[in-house]
Amino acid sequence: MTTQTQETITNGVNITKLGETVNAVKNDPGLAAFKFRATNKWIDGGFNEFTISELYGTRQRIAHEPPFVFKADEPEALLGKDRGPNPVEYVLGALSACMTTTLAYKSAGKGLNIEKIASEHEGDIDLRGFLEFDPKIEKGYKEIRVKFKVKGDPTVEEIKEILKKSPVYDTLVRPIKISIDVEKV
Amino acid sequence: MTTQTQETITNGVNITKLGETVNAVKNDPGLAAFKFRATNKWIDGGFNEFTISELYGTRQRIAHEPPFVFKADEPEALLGKDRGPNPVEYVLGALSACMTTTLAYKSAGKGLNIEKIASEHEGDIDLRGFLEFDPKIEKGYKEIRVKFKVKGDPTVEEIKEILKKSPVYDTLVRPIKISIDVEKV
Repeated sequence: MTTQTQETITNGVNITKLGETVNAVKNDPGLAAFKFRATNKWIDGGFNEFTISELYGTRQRIAHEPPFVFKADEPEALLGKDRGPNPVEYVLGALSACMTTTLAYKSAGKGLNIEKIASEHEGDIDLRGFLEFDPKIEKGYKEIRVKFKVKGDPTVEEIKEILKKSPVYDTLVRPIKISIDVEKV
Repeated sequence: MTTQTQETITNGVNITKLGETVNAVKNDPGLAAFKFRATNKWIDGGFNEFTISELYGTRQRIAHEPPFVFKADEPEALLGKDRGPNPVEYVLGALSACMTTTLAYKSAGKGLNIEKIASEHEGDIDLRGFLEFDPKIEKGYKEIRVKFKVKGDPTVEEIKEILKKSPVYDTLVRPIKISIDVEKV
């Protein structure tokens, strides 16, 4: 006997598997507990390297093979040698990727086709915060502006509503608890 | 006539130039207004590409030449093909890079030598948030834990205090305003 399976793909997202994932998590919420991980090694000054080699999800360790390795540095204006983006630039990259993926996935889940997504992201940092001129000046981003150009079914309002469901957007607009452990070696 | 200049480098950071930067910004706060930028193009499903090609600071556009280009994707468990880290993994990479650079720079500014910095970063996401099972479950990170191993002059308490001055740390622990503009094309 042959079983035929028909899978629906919308916006490059396998909707059949997405539905299976939703049902699996409904029956067993523990499958939804994900842990993401990164490690970092300092090289010199503002130059360092981070590695993303594994995550934990669906109750198992999932390896990235081979691991993803990235350099971070500072531009010369911030005393580096520009051998990689600086950390706050990576934040904008992460936000851009997450909002884009969220739009593709959530639209697919609603049966809305997307043909094209392009976006621009800009954030303001007043260096006087990091330099500790005034404790009232934020050290990180004061504000971020994003601009999306989208070709496809969803309306402007639907797109805005979906973009706000991005996990990185949600991480940035909410205060996150970060615990710090330090060991001298 | 020859002018001799002696520069002090600590932890790979040019302390002489750092002091000059601080003084320049004190005399002209407008030099401290930085704008960081990223663009993104969707490819398919959870696969997209972001580019970091320029920033604005010290009252001028500063180009990254060549631009930095990165792929983001999802692991198979999240319906992707693992062709790059996923967006929330990039957030941890950005945090790791920023805390590391902050420790190197701020220690150098205090005349404290650092020989080695290594770190591990882990964050929790409950997928039921993104899947919209319950509005009370966060879509992004619920909590992030970082662990630093440091060889050098600063004490554990000094290191913890410095790490909290990282701009990406500050961006994550505070709520950030993000404005969204959408255009249908």
